[in-house]
Amino acid sequence: MKGPLSPLFSPRSIALIGASASAGKISNVVLKNLLDSPFKVYPVNPREDEILGAHCYPSVSSIPDEIDLALIALPAMLSIRAVEDCIRKGVRIVIVTSSGFAESGQDGKILQDGLRDLIGVSGTRLLGPNTMGLMVPFHGLDTLFIPVEKSRRPPAGSIAIISQSGAVAVSFLEKAESFGMGISACIGLGNRVDINENELLEFFADDPNTDCVALYLESFADGRSFVDIARRISKIKPIVVLKAGRTSSGSRAASSHTGALASDSDELVAGALRQAGVIRVYDDEELVDVARVLAYKGKIDGDRVCVVASAGGFGVIASDFVESKEHGVGMTMAGLSEETRARLSKTMPTFSSVNNPVDLTAEVTDLMYEQVLEALQEDPGIDVIMMSLELQPPHVTQGLVDVAARRSSQGRIPIIISAFGGSRTQETLRALESRKIPSYPTIWRAIRAIAALHQRGSYLMKQK
Amino acid sequence: MKGPLSPLFSPRSIALIGASASAGKISNVVLKNLLDSPFKVYPVNPREDEILGAHCYPSVSSIPDEIDLALIALPAMLSIRAVEDCIRKGVRIVIVTSSGFAESGQDGKILQDGLRDLIGVSGTRLLGPNTMGLMVPFHGLDTLFIPVEKSRRPPAGSIAIISQSGAVAVSFLEKAESFGMGISACIGLGNRVDINENELLEFFADDPNTDCVALYLESFADGRSFVDIARRISKIKPIVVLKAGRTSSGSRAASSHTGALASDSDELVAGALRQAGVIRVYDDEELVDVARVLAYKGKIDGDRVCVVASAGGFGVIASDFVESKEHGVGMTMAGLSEETRARLSKTMPTFSSVNNPVDLTAEVTDLMYEQVLEALQEDPGIDVIMMSLELQPPHVTQGLVDVAARRSSQGRIPIIISAFGGSRTQETLRALESRKIPSYPTIWRAIRAIAALHQRGSYLMKQK
Repeated sequence: MKGPLSPLFSPRSIALIGASASAGKISNVVLKNLLDSPFKVYPVNPREDEILGAHCYPSVSSIPDEIDLALIALPAMLSIRAVEDCIRKGVRIVIVTSSGFAESGQDGKILQDGLRDLIGVSGTRLLGPNTMGLMVPFHGLDTLFIPVEKSRRPPAGSIAIISQSGAVAVSFLEKAESFGMGISACIGLGNRVDINENELLEFFADDPNTDCVALYLESFADGRSFVDIARRISKIKPIVVLKAGRTSSGSRAASSHTGALASDSDELVAGALRQAGVIRVYDDEELVDVARVLAYKGKIDGDRVCVVASAGGFGVIASDFVESKEHGVGMTMAGLSEETRARLSKTMPTFSSVNNPVDLTAEVTDLMYEQVLEALQEDPGIDVIMMSLELQPPHVTQGLVDVAARRSSQGRIPIIISAFGGSRTQETLRALESRKIPSYPTIWRAIRAIAALHQRGSYLMKQK
Repeated sequence: MKGPLSPLFSPRSIALIGASASAGKISNVVLKNLLDSPFKVYPVNPREDEILGAHCYPSVSSIPDEIDLALIALPAMLSIRAVEDCIRKGVRIVIVTSSGFAESGQDGKILQDGLRDLIGVSGTRLLGPNTMGLMVPFHGLDTLFIPVEKSRRPPAGSIAIISQSGAVAVSFLEKAESFGMGISACIGLGNRVDINENELLEFFADDPNTDCVALYLESFADGRSFVDIARRISKIKPIVVLKAGRTSSGSRAASSHTGALASDSDELVAGALRQAGVIRVYDDEELVDVARVLAYKGKIDGDRVCVVASAGGFGVIASDFVESKEHGVGMTMAGLSEETRARLSKTMPTFSSVNNPVDLTAEVTDLMYEQVLEALQEDPGIDVIMMSLELQPPHVTQGLVDVAARRSSQGRIPIIISAFGGSRTQETLRALESRKIPSYPTIWRAIRAIAALHQRGSYLMKQK
């Protein structure tokens, strides 16, 4: 009888098998992280009495406590023996980090099959092998084998990331951290001898901290189950997938990376994901971009976009991206109602035009932006607003960020923001992120996020 | 007889008509900028004796010196009179910044026609109206009507940007500044009563400081001439164009933005640009990305890409982008020669695979990267290398940036870099930019840059 996954995310006790006493060594850094956490931590190393002030045990079986989670930081060959010890001890979940299993060739495959057999007949669950582990900011859990100095971690938030590649997960974390986006959990799948994306998807579906699940996959552990589970869950929570290994070279590379064979054709995958209500993305940057707009805004109910900018050029570029099917998202530029046009005319500079895109010109003020956004949010012919937030015009102040935040939280229609420019953009994005407003440094990324909201809205509509 | 444009870029004397004495006012900020520059500067304002310590003249005709460049910072109606004064004075080039001309409707159009007639029969040249002016870091010239505190300026470099939108130009400048990219000049076209992109293109073709010309256009001043000129120049210098107003909404927005009618269908535009050897882009970010790779690397002679990464996942994503036609660039993953494979096998960790993408695994060291890049650069079956530079693996140091720089400057085959991650990526990009190595924060942007090099290579090949 297989146990549930909760001890993986909130263990009471953790053993680190292969804890190192040498400062700077990875399994020393991880131990330090764990000792700083709120868990009971037991380092295991037969050659040491204590490490970093913590008593060291010669084996996991000699620990006088039940162990929820054991991290094994040993070479592949030695990991097998350590897993056996964990099973005997009744450890609930084991994480095997070492590579040298199926991803490395025939010998590794034999080792991995042995590991699978061991776990299969036990009550112990296993994450990996060849995984970087996981990070759960809410509980202060961080088993990642990358020192914090090498890779900053994001705060607690509402997006869960499941990744078949450690590096893609780390990139996700660093991108999130760089503008202050929070995550509920980040977990590396590795070679998936036991725990896989399907079970994790079910876990996050029930996790109250998680509003959106993002996945990086090179292959499916069980494609049919994935589609069944995703179809059920996507009605409640948005799911975003970056499925790599789309081309023949990509899929060959995937097989030597994670040892998994991607047998399905990409067309088949695309169709199955679409039917399951999964939003598919193609880029690691898009994975972050789309996950957060779905986590914060969920969906929109139609395809009519209104664009507001103080820079005419950005209005033109945005309109093209909205309408074009080839280099754009193939949505519609909303027509403004007579009432809206009349309200805008009163607010805007006389020489600016009252069309969509609304061009506020360089004469724009914070107040003008607020009044215009308010009027647009009351127009029933608009489903979503893209605001190009420009802090360069002379009469605009940093207060425009508050305007965006206020209209975003109070208005009927979602506002997605594009904040253009250089170094200052980063500050603006952080300020908006802290208020859960989806904001992007380019027009294209903002419009692509809007398309994801529309795709989700259309899917949910069809389910009714 | 129309004069040449050089006084626009390196004037000996500048008049600022409408100079303001009020601190914080735009035409006061601009005056300050100009007074800090190496030019002779003459403020004009009939109501002041001196501003910022500079003697003030009641009119341009009262200045006891020849004037190369006059900046007019007055409302539209008053600008006409000031232009007349400049013509009488024999000013060589006038910049009219005010809006309220053809972009604002019928009345403005009449004003603009008057301006066109005035200039047409004179020896004076005119930039604008409705332009933000220009910036030439090499000469310390900066007439932009945006205070430096609101928008940081980039250093001197080899890329010229010509923009029909002030905001897109400012965005280009800020993006460039944020990672240390230099520009040779940045110039806003405005409503193009006289000076247009065609003449500027010819100017930059002869400018020894400029290695690549980037343009943002919503319409062509004279499409046929543009194609003729671009065809001639693109054989010598790369030209990149973001042509907006592609869709019906975009083109309507363009007409109310710059008062120009975009009458050509986008298909026609696409074909003409392709035939003229112009690289077309769709995004303001892509404009910067592609301009710099062309400025630094020019072209590649084939479509065979080799990908090197220490993170398997990025190798997979990159392979997909290289090969896929639908979500990618439709190029080829290079096959490695037997000799290269033998050399790599000696260098790389035993369990890593010697294929393309080359996966160096988390065991990677700086030295390993250097030896692998060296071997790949000597493989005649490879046209370009995409290196995913990851600073997170335990044995990699900041010295990897030097490795990338050394291989990039010494090797036969161009190396394009993708440096992944969060805040630290920005530092890495700056370090690489300072050595003129094209580097991008995502795999997709790096592969897209490679596709631009390939497009240029193919075009030049066909011209032989």
